[in-house]
Amino acid sequence: MLTKSKNIDGLKKILAPENILTGKEERYIYAQDATNTRKSKRLPDAVVFPGSIEEVQAIVRYANKHHIPIVCRGAGTNLVGACFCDNGGIVMCFSKMNKIININKIDMTATVQPGVVIGELQSQVEAMGLFFPPDPSNLRVSTIGGAIAQSAGGPRTFKYGGTKDYILDLKVVLSDGSIIQTGSNTIKNATGYNLGQLFVGSEGTLGIVVEALVKLIPKPEASQVIMAYFDSVKDAANSVNTILQNRFMPSTLDFMDGNAITTVEKFFNIGLNTEKDALLIIEIDGFECSIDYQRENIIRILNQSGASGIKYSTNEEEAKKIWQGRRASFAATAKLKPDVLTDDVIVSRSNLGKLVKGIKSICDKYNLLVSIVGHVGDGNVHPQIALNLDDEQEYNNYKAAKKEIYKLTVSLGGIISAEHGIGVEKKEFIPKVINGLSIDYMKRVKKVFDPKNILNPGKIFDL
Amino acid sequence: MLTKSKNIDGLKKILAPENILTGKEERYIYAQDATNTRKSKRLPDAVVFPGSIEEVQAIVRYANKHHIPIVCRGAGTNLVGACFCDNGGIVMCFSKMNKIININKIDMTATVQPGVVIGELQSQVEAMGLFFPPDPSNLRVSTIGGAIAQSAGGPRTFKYGGTKDYILDLKVVLSDGSIIQTGSNTIKNATGYNLGQLFVGSEGTLGIVVEALVKLIPKPEASQVIMAYFDSVKDAANSVNTILQNRFMPSTLDFMDGNAITTVEKFFNIGLNTEKDALLIIEIDGFECSIDYQRENIIRILNQSGASGIKYSTNEEEAKKIWQGRRASFAATAKLKPDVLTDDVIVSRSNLGKLVKGIKSICDKYNLLVSIVGHVGDGNVHPQIALNLDDEQEYNNYKAAKKEIYKLTVSLGGIISAEHGIGVEKKEFIPKVINGLSIDYMKRVKKVFDPKNILNPGKIFDL
Repeated sequence: MLTKSKNIDGLKKILAPENILTGKEERYIYAQDATNTRKSKRLPDAVVFPGSIEEVQAIVRYANKHHIPIVCRGAGTNLVGACFCDNGGIVMCFSKMNKIININKIDMTATVQPGVVIGELQSQVEAMGLFFPPDPSNLRVSTIGGAIAQSAGGPRTFKYGGTKDYILDLKVVLSDGSIIQTGSNTIKNATGYNLGQLFVGSEGTLGIVVEALVKLIPKPEASQVIMAYFDSVKDAANSVNTILQNRFMPSTLDFMDGNAITTVEKFFNIGLNTEKDALLIIEIDGFECSIDYQRENIIRILNQSGASGIKYSTNEEEAKKIWQGRRASFAATAKLKPDVLTDDVIVSRSNLGKLVKGIKSICDKYNLLVSIVGHVGDGNVHPQIALNLDDEQEYNNYKAAKKEIYKLTVSLGGIISAEHGIGVEKKEFIPKVINGLSIDYMKRVKKVFDPKNILNPGKIFDL
Repeated sequence: MLTKSKNIDGLKKILAPENILTGKEERYIYAQDATNTRKSKRLPDAVVFPGSIEEVQAIVRYANKHHIPIVCRGAGTNLVGACFCDNGGIVMCFSKMNKIININKIDMTATVQPGVVIGELQSQVEAMGLFFPPDPSNLRVSTIGGAIAQSAGGPRTFKYGGTKDYILDLKVVLSDGSIIQTGSNTIKNATGYNLGQLFVGSEGTLGIVVEALVKLIPKPEASQVIMAYFDSVKDAANSVNTILQNRFMPSTLDFMDGNAITTVEKFFNIGLNTEKDALLIIEIDGFECSIDYQRENIIRILNQSGASGIKYSTNEEEAKKIWQGRRASFAATAKLKPDVLTDDVIVSRSNLGKLVKGIKSICDKYNLLVSIVGHVGDGNVHPQIALNLDDEQEYNNYKAAKKEIYKLTVSLGGIISAEHGIGVEKKEFIPKVINGLSIDYMKRVKKVFDPKNILNPGKIFDL
């Protein structure tokens, strides 16, 4: 269906010369994203940088007419190959549509273009006493458009919800170049179907988000970070359950397993206790006057749950230091071997201990080095596997382990993507985790919005 | 397309005799809901009470085969005619599928059947220290299934979100009797399209929700209610803006206008100050230790914003007393005339004052008695209009006023349903508030899920 050689000459009539790249090196760079397992199977025929909604529409109309695939990208930080150009076509990069159009302090909303960097939006709204909670770990570079496409979360999702929970309205260019608006400039909306949430997490396969109205909330007055060691991730998770049952709702409940601790310590030597098999990092926030109360009670519960080495931050510097280990885990694990692959699986919180234990066993069985980190509150686990991708045996082991990890996740009632999406990396597993009829209806919805399958074809599922 | 006389005899093979009603009086009762403007144009041919998912599937298969419309209902409390049977057919009432299947204290989730009464779920989870925030005003009788169908909110939506924000997973029977699952037993999910949110707010037109997994959160330790009078709703809204800019996030920010105050006082004599044109009711919650701090600061801001008559609750009894006026507004307004019609419009918070003032002018122009209440935080207004529906002139005035209210709402950038839905009552206005292409895509999605248009036909839009 998709033509093999794409006629992209017409794009030159739509865009100024500086907004279209056709050189081989440039096309190579924009064919890749942060996915490590493989490269894009093909290069795009052109990389375009639209500067306006009208330019996006003109490009899409052209692509539609000529059956040319369009792959949108923000910063290309996704880990599932969602920006790969396996069918060639056009890469539409939103780095020139990166304006914060408006921050409405009274209504507590922001209107943003898709290329806005999340961290930039957060800085600007926080300076006004406002708060945009979604915090994917790459937020210093990753964009709102990407976060919408992949339904990104982050440590704070447990208390505050993820990207999807902050989308009030989207302007979306559809596959024929027409444009729809999915919501309104209001906090609530029960007027027709919630089309907006169909686009969130659809990885650019249903339409192209060209503007978003996001909800903001008042920034909490204060926060504090607590760390505590446990003998196992299961013990740490049990402790979290007790904290929640005592009606505390920390903003973040992250963990590192023993391998992650040891690996970070090996390369960064920041003083972590490598004899322990789990480190729990708890961030509390709220009114200044409630911080001591929350911390004292949580520390009491941690002590009663067998924690040791409990510390807490008394200023931002110390808070950063506590987070340092958790944040360094990926970089440290990457030093163990030439490559590192991180994954994203999720179970209910009561099954977290079993999942982490199982992932360790699987990786042991396949002789793979794994650091496990994640979000205890959500039951969300990110195994970081160090390996040499050029070592065929090791790569095959990795592929076998990945399958078993997904199988285990599903056997525990969980699912194979919490906040990274499916892209091309996980699509072969979709039929095993979602009931076939649901996939069938997803495909029918895809056909409604993109009958020619030009929008990010081959992502999430094959038609 | 829909057959005029429906063959419902086959239903008797599916259901026990006590679970199918065919008497005229019974069919009359189940054809209506809480909508006052008119009655259902037709009676259903049968009212069925399925007791299991399998029975729902069997009924739907039968209806599909014979092209019989199915209208689902919980407690029938909706105000937009979403349960009307204008095409006859089958009313499927979920009063026998009203079990709380499971409350998982550790994972903080509940699995419920659609007929579960919201207040009942709240009582049960609150006894366990948990919290299900969605609080439509009729929660003592209204059901989870209805709240999902209409995307119901309530006063607490401002801080905690509405029904849609607590749906993790749905089991949905589709129009051919097949069943799909839309999510997973996890807090986050980025695995394929978010079909679940397509069903929330779809008013039973896309599928029949037969089981829901909802998210719970820890119940806040304490709450307190503050009341304050203002000279206008605009002043009250400005005061709320200042509260939020000072980074306080009350759980509820409700208001009554001068007419609502006077009307409540006239019939219930509870000691409200009828000389004031706005009453603001603020509920704060959180850690016990933060309550004094929140209250003192909020009262300081209220005083600085020109409030008077500020009071606050010191126990639950007093809290109830403060809420009494706001809760009595509908009943009081109903005493002014034989009938009362309540509406549901929403604008951004900065436009709330203008909307309320405009609604008053419109009602004055048409000589209609209106009490206006609503949620300042959301910009959500519920005008309660007292009238005699048998008085043709008055009813025509009402219809003209309604049109103007919607026009005003849209001119202020708002939308015509925040938490009640569209049903039949508002569908003629949909093309004026949603871009035609969006409606077109909603209809295409409807066709994907219900090609024969048997599920609640004629609601939201006509095909």
